[in-house]
Amino acid sequence: MNLFDLPKILPAEELFETLLPDRGVLIERIISTGQVSPPDFWYDQERDEWVVVLQGEAVLQWENGREQKLLAGDWVCIPAHKRHRVSYTSLQPPCIWLAVHGTLALNP
Amino acid sequence: MNLFDLPKILPAEELFETLLPDRGVLIERIISTGQVSPPDFWYDQERDEWVVVLQGEAVLQWENGREQKLLAGDWVCIPAHKRHRVSYTSLQPPCIWLAVHGTLALNP
Repeated sequence: MNLFDLPKILPAEELFETLLPDRGVLIERIISTGQVSPPDFWYDQERDEWVVVLQGEAVLQWENGREQKLLAGDWVCIPAHKRHRVSYTSLQPPCIWLAVHGTLALNP
Repeated sequence: MNLFDLPKILPAEELFETLLPDRGVLIERIISTGQVSPPDFWYDQERDEWVVVLQGEAVLQWENGREQKLLAGDWVCIPAHKRHRVSYTSLQPPCIWLAVHGTLALNP
């Protein structure tokens, strides 16, 4: 599977695909097509995450209200339990994320 | 730093940039501009590697002689101690790799 290849018909939901089986480190591709986190929903993850947008655009929102726009190639480290949500993802083109989850020993 | 942004002047050598400090998992960007592994040189790494070509093209060679072409978006898992070398990288455009090194528990 090529990271830039998309299914001909994209599902209505975000598409999560495991690239590396999770034996401590999970590598996944996520395809977003305009979806955002539900209002008042916050990701609060057990593990650190390193994530990059490879195509399209997205906006992350942090608990202090700050929004961070991610263009293709922009990456961010999200320490475990650092609350965040996704407030925007592009539909055209679809937003392709690559995420690495694990104990990456980030400082919050 | 954006993964697709390149220095205005590329060095003659391959450029390795650590994106996530190595506390068990190393995430790095590698820029290749035509370099290949020296003849008879084989990578024989202590840790598993998950690597993707994000721009340009490259060819990996495995110890059994097989060559594997990687186009932008193509990724591969390389278990620890699976010997390999790089037999081609594109110069135009420069080859941008993203590599994750760690104990990824791959089966050789």
